[in-house]
Amino acid sequence: MGSDCSLSLSENTPSPRRSSIVSADSQQRIRIAITLGDPNGIGPEVVLKCLDDPLLKKRVEPVLVGSLKILKFHAKLLGKRLPPIVEGLNKPIPKFGIRIVDTTTPQQDPLIEMGQVTPWAGSMAMNAVDEGIRLSMQNQVAALVTAPISKLAIVRAGYNFPGHTEYLAKKTNVKQKVMMMVSDEMRISLVTDHIAVGQISQRITSNGLISKLRRVRASLIKDFGILHPKIAVLGLNPHAGEGGVLGDEEKDIIIPAIKEAGNRGIIAFGPFPADAFFGNRLYCAYDAIMAMYHDQGLIPFKTLSFGCGVNFTAGLPIVRTSPDHGTAFDIAGSNKANEGSMVHAVLLAAWIAENRQ
Amino acid sequence: MGSDCSLSLSENTPSPRRSSIVSADSQQRIRIAITLGDPNGIGPEVVLKCLDDPLLKKRVEPVLVGSLKILKFHAKLLGKRLPPIVEGLNKPIPKFGIRIVDTTTPQQDPLIEMGQVTPWAGSMAMNAVDEGIRLSMQNQVAALVTAPISKLAIVRAGYNFPGHTEYLAKKTNVKQKVMMMVSDEMRISLVTDHIAVGQISQRITSNGLISKLRRVRASLIKDFGILHPKIAVLGLNPHAGEGGVLGDEEKDIIIPAIKEAGNRGIIAFGPFPADAFFGNRLYCAYDAIMAMYHDQGLIPFKTLSFGCGVNFTAGLPIVRTSPDHGTAFDIAGSNKANEGSMVHAVLLAAWIAENRQ
Repeated sequence: MGSDCSLSLSENTPSPRRSSIVSADSQQRIRIAITLGDPNGIGPEVVLKCLDDPLLKKRVEPVLVGSLKILKFHAKLLGKRLPPIVEGLNKPIPKFGIRIVDTTTPQQDPLIEMGQVTPWAGSMAMNAVDEGIRLSMQNQVAALVTAPISKLAIVRAGYNFPGHTEYLAKKTNVKQKVMMMVSDEMRISLVTDHIAVGQISQRITSNGLISKLRRVRASLIKDFGILHPKIAVLGLNPHAGEGGVLGDEEKDIIIPAIKEAGNRGIIAFGPFPADAFFGNRLYCAYDAIMAMYHDQGLIPFKTLSFGCGVNFTAGLPIVRTSPDHGTAFDIAGSNKANEGSMVHAVLLAAWIAENRQ
Repeated sequence: MGSDCSLSLSENTPSPRRSSIVSADSQQRIRIAITLGDPNGIGPEVVLKCLDDPLLKKRVEPVLVGSLKILKFHAKLLGKRLPPIVEGLNKPIPKFGIRIVDTTTPQQDPLIEMGQVTPWAGSMAMNAVDEGIRLSMQNQVAALVTAPISKLAIVRAGYNFPGHTEYLAKKTNVKQKVMMMVSDEMRISLVTDHIAVGQISQRITSNGLISKLRRVRASLIKDFGILHPKIAVLGLNPHAGEGGVLGDEEKDIIIPAIKEAGNRGIIAFGPFPADAFFGNRLYCAYDAIMAMYHDQGLIPFKTLSFGCGVNFTAGLPIVRTSPDHGTAFDIAGSNKANEGSMVHAVLLAAWIAENRQ
């Protein structure tokens, strides 16, 4: 199954879409670690499929991190021939070859149960993440891309973390991370994320918003090479509160925060009524968008990213991206997964790594 | 300026887009009242521009309701020649001619102040609405389309209503109305609308949701000719509450309401995580969507309707639609307004009126 997003990846189309993802002037392949994710989910499938992407093959030297046996199991399931594989990072590699850092011992047999939550799968997935972090921290790879894991499976395997991001922050000793959703259309971050709608209002503070704006700005400069980033801030309430008639948070919290951010050199605009902001395509005019809550940011992001959205964790010492989907246990093993988001995650990681260098 | 949505209106393109708006087999022009809206806003401009739409010209006999002098003022401002105009509803009309029911006396001179909120403008706008309602209730026209009014202007003119919808409900003695946003992509209604985000959770009840589902279903059958409508219900919280981890409203209120609705013969599904629902294009599979709050519904609607969205007030004895934009005082008089939404509002009104007949 091909990527739905091939237009944006065509090397011969110097469109804004493409240019936002991959630099045209890189001359050699850049080494990117890609973990396989939960072996019972679609992670290994999208990793295998993304290796066929022409631009990825040319620009990236993929370093798969995980179990070679699991990889082979999935390749067989998909009826896919593997590209030439070299174990480890030191041996020479043929053109369009890939590397694997095998995180299992040759004796271990895979206990794959497609679509199931198992502690074994959680443990396999996290072994690969640990190795991926190590390779990244030691600069043996330029960036880390993580295929999806199951939160439940890793908890059952003894890892007390809600997901990759928190684990990576802990392992790299970082507190000031910020998630950024990146597509060809927009970059978007959230002030609040996985909380109930009833709790959003009380969790939005001026300091919290300013702190997120600061981190997003830093990433736009460092990771995306934007010298003077402009950030759009969405209102919390319908019509951005309509002057207080539909809520006070805009005048009491958001507007003062935008002003204070301006005093600190952060170029932020708003608050914009969210529906009109997206309806009128204003996102095209800003380098990033700050949404107040999960669905306010994720609905337009997913509506417009056409399955090619990427999660980027800004603020880590390493470059880390991931596709914007989960393990999709319901379609695991059925060859239905679309690798578009994974392709973009790898290319974006490469591009950010080059920017940082 | 042409409509951006001409594709969907081409008579020679029997696409799903077009078929959702206009029936191909109507043989004669259907009479639709169109109020001019606030004379200081973009209402008269989009009304004038929509008259050029080829399909509208063929299918609809427009009955403009408002001041002829205001209409002429705007036509001059835009440099537009008016089509042949017949005053009143009784005289014969030439091909592609339009009618006007003038709601001002010949002595009245227009006091237009473009882009300004004035009581005179509010009064002019509401006189036209009153006349439009009268014509509709007396079946002299098949439907009513209202150009935008300024809430502030009508309040200053002595009308104590937040907008058209509430005024129409009052004038037609209706309590059980429901707003439906209609585009070529989707129909969407809201459980809560113009309230602060902090109040959403406490305003969502099982009975309220069931009542809205019932009204939306009735309209899908009566107005859109769908025999067994399927309605998708969105979750309130991120990931539709993720089994209670991110909020209780799904399991305590929404899921029981969907079940109870099913017992009453309403085919409703969900609750769906809103971001994935739109990201995966699930809206294509449902006849209508029930969103829990303003931005949850309006963000994807406006993102995908490309300036051609229509407001439809279901549950009134008369057929009433309006464009999904406001008076846009900031661009009033500058010939920048896009009539796409107004064109669609008129065609949808005609289509619904035919369905009801």
